[in-house]
Amino acid sequence: MTTIRTKPRLSIEYCPKCNWLMRSVWMTQELLTTFADDLGEVALIPSEIAGRFTIMVEDEVLFDRKKEGRFPEIKELKQLVRDKVCPEKSLGHSDKNKS
Amino acid sequence: MTTIRTKPRLSIEYCPKCNWLMRSVWMTQELLTTFADDLGEVALIPSEIAGRFTIMVEDEVLFDRKKEGRFPEIKELKQLVRDKVCPEKSLGHSDKNKS
Repeated sequence: MTTIRTKPRLSIEYCPKCNWLMRSVWMTQELLTTFADDLGEVALIPSEIAGRFTIMVEDEVLFDRKKEGRFPEIKELKQLVRDKVCPEKSLGHSDKNKS
Repeated sequence: MTTIRTKPRLSIEYCPKCNWLMRSVWMTQELLTTFADDLGEVALIPSEIAGRFTIMVEDEVLFDRKKEGRFPEIKELKQLVRDKVCPEKSLGHSDKNKS
């Protein structure tokens, strides 16, 4: 039953004690709505490290809350994922300003 | 930044064309609320196989929609995960009837 995964894996490691599950899940459904054909999987990882909120594509950090001092905007996050995973993809009308 | 994962991985492979993302995400947040300390990660996998809805713990099938002919009840799913991952864990008042 195992499906061999050839598309990239995105992971969100979040701090459960900070109650960041729901926003992580929300980002997951946003990403899987936009990138269903482009991502192999999105994994949610409850972190044992307090305050951790790190989004990775494979082994590369895409966004780290500690480094950035904030959470990503969803538009920004989708642009980061697109640029990394499928740079030719248009994100539609929300993609006009690459702020 | 990579965290070494020692707890088991649960995965939900779902058919995006059947619009099963939202129920998969809902099950994910239910499982990660209950098993934040017990699961290493929950991965959502958009399947390329039409009609696929398969929940696995590591490489073992926990629930397969095609085999069962239905989706799991959330209580049933939590009992299956508990029995597999942390059999000593109580699921509280929802755990009285192991139907």
